[in-house]
Amino acid sequence: MEEGEKMKVGLLGATGYSGAVLYSLLKQHPKVAHIDLYGHKKEAKSTEFLDTTIPAYLNEHVELQEFDPAVIIDKDDILFCATPSGVTNKLARPFIEKNFPLIDLSGDFRFKDPAVYSKWYNKPAAPAEQLQKACYGLAEFNKLTSNYIANPGCYATASLLGLAPLVIDKLIVPDTIVIDAKSGVSGAGKKPNATNHYTFINENAWLYKLNKHQHIPEITQQLQAWDADIPAIQFTTTLIPVTRGIMATIYVKAATGVTLDGLRRSFQQHYQNKKFVRVLANGVPSIKEVTGSNYCNIGFDYNKVTNTIVVVSVIDNLMKGAAGQAVQNFNNLFNFPEDAGLPSMPVFP
Amino acid sequence: MEEGEKMKVGLLGATGYSGAVLYSLLKQHPKVAHIDLYGHKKEAKSTEFLDTTIPAYLNEHVELQEFDPAVIIDKDDILFCATPSGVTNKLARPFIEKNFPLIDLSGDFRFKDPAVYSKWYNKPAAPAEQLQKACYGLAEFNKLTSNYIANPGCYATASLLGLAPLVIDKLIVPDTIVIDAKSGVSGAGKKPNATNHYTFINENAWLYKLNKHQHIPEITQQLQAWDADIPAIQFTTTLIPVTRGIMATIYVKAATGVTLDGLRRSFQQHYQNKKFVRVLANGVPSIKEVTGSNYCNIGFDYNKVTNTIVVVSVIDNLMKGAAGQAVQNFNNLFNFPEDAGLPSMPVFP
Amino acid sequence: MEEGEKMKVGLLGATGYSGAVLYSLLKQHPKVAHIDLYGHKKEAKSTEFLDTTIPAYLNEHVELQEFDPAVIIDKDDILFCATPSGVTNKLARPFIEKNFPLIDLSGDFRFKDPAVYSKWYNKPAAPAEQLQKACYGLAEFNKLTSNYIANPGCYATASLLGLAPLVIDKLIVPDTIVIDAKSGVSGAGKKPNATNHYTFINENAWLYKLNKHQHIPEITQQLQAWDADIPAIQFTTTLIPVTRGIMATIYVKAATGVTLDGLRRSFQQHYQNKKFVRVLANGVPSIKEVTGSNYCNIGFDYNKVTNTIVVVSVIDNLMKGAAGQAVQNFNNLFNFPEDAGLPSMPVFP
Amino acid sequence: MEEGEKMKVGLLGATGYSGAVLYSLLKQHPKVAHIDLYGHKKEAKSTEFLDTTIPAYLNEHVELQEFDPAVIIDKDDILFCATPSGVTNKLARPFIEKNFPLIDLSGDFRFKDPAVYSKWYNKPAAPAEQLQKACYGLAEFNKLTSNYIANPGCYATASLLGLAPLVIDKLIVPDTIVIDAKSGVSGAGKKPNATNHYTFINENAWLYKLNKHQHIPEITQQLQAWDADIPAIQFTTTLIPVTRGIMATIYVKAATGVTLDGLRRSFQQHYQNKKFVRVLANGVPSIKEVTGSNYCNIGFDYNKVTNTIVVVSVIDNLMKGAAGQAVQNFNNLFNFPEDAGLPSMPVFP
Repeated sequence: MEEGEKMKVGLLGATGYSGAVLYSLLKQHPKVAHIDLYGHKKEAKSTEFLDTTIPAYLNEHVELQEFDPAVIIDKDDILFCATPSGVTNKLARPFIEKNFPLIDLSGDFRFKDPAVYSKWYNKPAAPAEQLQKACYGLAEFNKLTSNYIANPGCYATASLLGLAPLVIDKLIVPDTIVIDAKSGVSGAGKKPNATNHYTFINENAWLYKLNKHQHIPEITQQLQAWDADIPAIQFTTTLIPVTRGIMATIYVKAATGVTLDGLRRSFQQHYQNKKFVRVLANGVPSIKEVTGSNYCNIGFDYNKVTNTIVVVSVIDNLMKGAAGQAVQNFNNLFNFPEDAGLPSMPVFP
Repeated sequence: MEEGEKMKVGLLGATGYSGAVLYSLLKQHPKVAHIDLYGHKKEAKSTEFLDTTIPAYLNEHVELQEFDPAVIIDKDDILFCATPSGVTNKLARPFIEKNFPLIDLSGDFRFKDPAVYSKWYNKPAAPAEQLQKACYGLAEFNKLTSNYIANPGCYATASLLGLAPLVIDKLIVPDTIVIDAKSGVSGAGKKPNATNHYTFINENAWLYKLNKHQHIPEITQQLQAWDADIPAIQFTTTLIPVTRGIMATIYVKAATGVTLDGLRRSFQQHYQNKKFVRVLANGVPSIKEVTGSNYCNIGFDYNKVTNTIVVVSVIDNLMKGAAGQAVQNFNNLFNFPEDAGLPSMPVFP
Repeated sequence: MEEGEKMKVGLLGATGYSGAVLYSLLKQHPKVAHIDLYGHKKEAKSTEFLDTTIPAYLNEHVELQEFDPAVIIDKDDILFCATPSGVTNKLARPFIEKNFPLIDLSGDFRFKDPAVYSKWYNKPAAPAEQLQKACYGLAEFNKLTSNYIANPGCYATASLLGLAPLVIDKLIVPDTIVIDAKSGVSGAGKKPNATNHYTFINENAWLYKLNKHQHIPEITQQLQAWDADIPAIQFTTTLIPVTRGIMATIYVKAATGVTLDGLRRSFQQHYQNKKFVRVLANGVPSIKEVTGSNYCNIGFDYNKVTNTIVVVSVIDNLMKGAAGQAVQNFNNLFNFPEDAGLPSMPVFP
Repeated sequence: MEEGEKMKVGLLGATGYSGAVLYSLLKQHPKVAHIDLYGHKKEAKSTEFLDTTIPAYLNEHVELQEFDPAVIIDKDDILFCATPSGVTNKLARPFIEKNFPLIDLSGDFRFKDPAVYSKWYNKPAAPAEQLQKACYGLAEFNKLTSNYIANPGCYATASLLGLAPLVIDKLIVPDTIVIDAKSGVSGAGKKPNATNHYTFINENAWLYKLNKHQHIPEITQQLQAWDADIPAIQFTTTLIPVTRGIMATIYVKAATGVTLDGLRRSFQQHYQNKKFVRVLANGVPSIKEVTGSNYCNIGFDYNKVTNTIVVVSVIDNLMKGAAGQAVQNFNNLFNFPEDAGLPSMPVFP
């Protein structure tokens, strides 16, 4: 690309929540000249592909184009896939073969081992060689080593950013990690069902997929990349009645000699130059401090009585946990300013 | 029935919200000895007929019996139908022919004129002679003239109780009634869809079925029974993010000579002996004052500048607006104390 | 100002909700070079003036400067006042005398008649000559005739934008306007009290200040400026459990000869060139379509049976209803693009 | 008391949430003939002692009597204290000296060691001999050994019922208990403040009092009574945007040889005869299954990979966590049926 030139981006899957937020961010992005929207199924040609709520929000009539890799490779500079799991791994080959930039928001390319994907997603995995090529885009830690980026999951992002300094600096007892993650309902997707019905989840809290959530292996894989001694994690997800936001509360026994000051130095050192991670000087963050923004806010404490470190990490699941980090990866891939097109402030109150 | 004898009740449709609340009320009712649950479709024989959320709430395994009118008439003393519209009018004949007590929570028998039902419900109506036999069970005003009771709709109950004194006592200009009703999401039923998805209705307010809501003719029919000069009403329904509750805010121009004291006397006179309608001495009620109870709380004011009476009427849509009023009608039908089995206090806070 | 030059803005009252949102907007505004924050009381010199929730959101330590008009006039190019009622009218004189640009978000300068302010706000009014100088900044309709702008109230904005075409084009019966406005809790301010306690307003709806709300005269004054025949309005405000957003549902009898097509033409004509008012082709808007944006979305219908026009007008009370419209007025005052610094998309979902 | 005789109960502190719920339960209790309401401060004589929201809910005018122990001992059969911490320990002496039945919902008499109370409540403790006399009324486990009952805290109840079988049967590694408790806002009391403001906690989650919550020593004391080897617990409390309800999610490493079947047997054995604890056959409970009821629902799983037992225990914080358990203790103290006056069904939906 020429200096100052703007890009043409393709977006597959604008009808879901992540896709809608991504579309909204890309529309305001200073380096994006044009967005092509694609559909991956029969409905591709429909001009009414967005459901009734989204046009009202967009207040515009958007046309969906048929998904054709050759056309996209010819016409666009990058493709974002905001599709459910099991879609991208069927579509990816032509893009990977041409080394065409692709940022995938689904879980399809997050694992190095196809067997892990198959087991936790209960679907056929992408070929191993494709998985090897993909780069797990945890923006604060992983260099983009290819044009094929697996954008991290929402729970994984909050959990990994909260644990990274502790694990990298070996400040913990490896087999004692417990993560209690709370999430807003938008994380469960747009398709109506009994558990996202207002009447069920309002005034409720609901722990789901106990010991079966597909972000468990995603988090574990990255933790083990930092420290091979981490054997496993205990991880739960509880839906709470908010629309957006994740709070990951992390409990872990401290390694010998750890102090609160030592923890501060570790977090400070890892995040002082990271634009989108804010380490609180005192106390722990609440979800609303980051809603609508791409920030991850982190606070922590050390309990001497139980020798336990508690870390609280909050993100907006649709921003830093999905569309926001996708734009951050996009910026990094093309050497745009890391915060280009990303709102600098949360929505408050 | 013998004095002191308890009843056997049948309940068709316990899987919906009204049915679940009705089941819960009947289980604690001092005059109910036994409840038979019936299904009206193929799933009738399933023993897992209640969806995943309801058994958790009941914490019991309930068996659903096949719906067979002859068996019910033989076995039970009354049948409650908490079914969607279009079901009861297909099942009613054998019960009506035997004069078997039936309380229908759907809209199927609320109208005297079949054409009105067909137009607003967009479904075939029950035969006119059946409609004539049914009694519209607005408990505070209508004598039960038959064993066949059409339990009023939720919006209709709140609106009619708020308007009754004004209309009966001719305190208003007949063609100026405006009702702005706000409702909780449970009123829209249990079937998941795009507009009861938590993410849609949370942090939102949504006016639906503008000028097309099926409670418009139901309210109008009863108002005209009180005063044939009422030509029509302007009525809207707005879904707000609460689970239970309706607030009907009523605006109407005052007839010549009306004063605030006159309004007070009218409301006082009509409701002083009504157990479940509470007229506030001052101010207007909020929804939560009645949640979980069978009360309708009513407050009002008269604005001289605009010559407008404002009435605020609140109910719990699943109690006074459905299952609670059904039990009240049941009590009245069998001369039980009117509040038998009905909780005397709201859930607060 | 020179072409391309950026401005220095002063902000008094950043600790409230409107002030916090305004600060957030100004920080991202392309024409704002610097923001000075001022305090108007003793706490002015405190560096911890923002409450505990706001620094977390800002994630920065902001210093509050002592409020001194001479210094501000010397140092800044404009002053925004996001203060409670009764503050600005005590501070305004030096700014008005110097013709220094000032945008006041409070009600202090919205009335032409001091007696009206005193009556509805129950406080001493600003001097009549100051009130005359102030310009009521309903951005879509009122030319900015002075440097002293009274930013409209939230309910007033939603109501007036919904009524403007009908009133200006004389499509209604003048004495039949009913406005039923629903508002999120942030509109009631940040000071904790019994009615903004979560436990009170969650799962509730609460009609407050019946016939006494201070936006009644504000709306009436502007309507009468458009059509002196409008005698009064019937207006109520109901708090609903959402944080942000207003829905004004307007009922009014149609003048003779009005048709739905006629209404469409009127709305179309008045708003086709207005960037921040979107008239829906069909149906009525829900609050969430505008949350986080400066838009006012409007839908309407005409009910022949009752001869009633229903208009639904939704805004974000802190954006178009406060800080957003203040920025819009700022842009208009200095001939910046009307949408400079205003996000082009709602927060969705 | 004579067989069949009804009781006169006194209630101090009906203005708070627990007190209001307790009043509501006692009013419907089949063994309660009369309730005297008392005030403990100057406002005692006021007849308007209940705040504006509570009379609306009660829909009755209740008189508050001056608090005078001699009068109460003479007139009533029992006193309930639903007061903030630091009140009962100043008032208790005359009742204890007379062995007059008293159920205290505050934390004042929950500890055996005055130093523990002083440290965690930051207030002077009751005399040690009074503390010794009091009985910690965890209804399912502790025999009532005196007339002086310290009703357990809400978090403590949920946590202890979830942990009891594991600790009593020594199924866990003692120093690995982690409790992540989520609570509704009513648990934080009725006094308005910045963190129970709707606008703060709506759409938010907020972990408060990290490592400093006063229920930590309460839980630890009881666990150590069951197994002196439990050294401490890691316990956090997160406020979520619901009005009522607590979910305690418990993580603990399993002792050698533990299996899921073994866990089932342990829970089954401890709770099969307990009316208000329901052990789920499969899965884990959501809060709403118990809202409005006195039930504690418990579910659990064993994760072999991490050797971790996860227990989820849910209660209504104002029922089983306060007023409901107080009535349960009242029933047990006087040998009434354990569920007398306690609703048998949750509020659902």
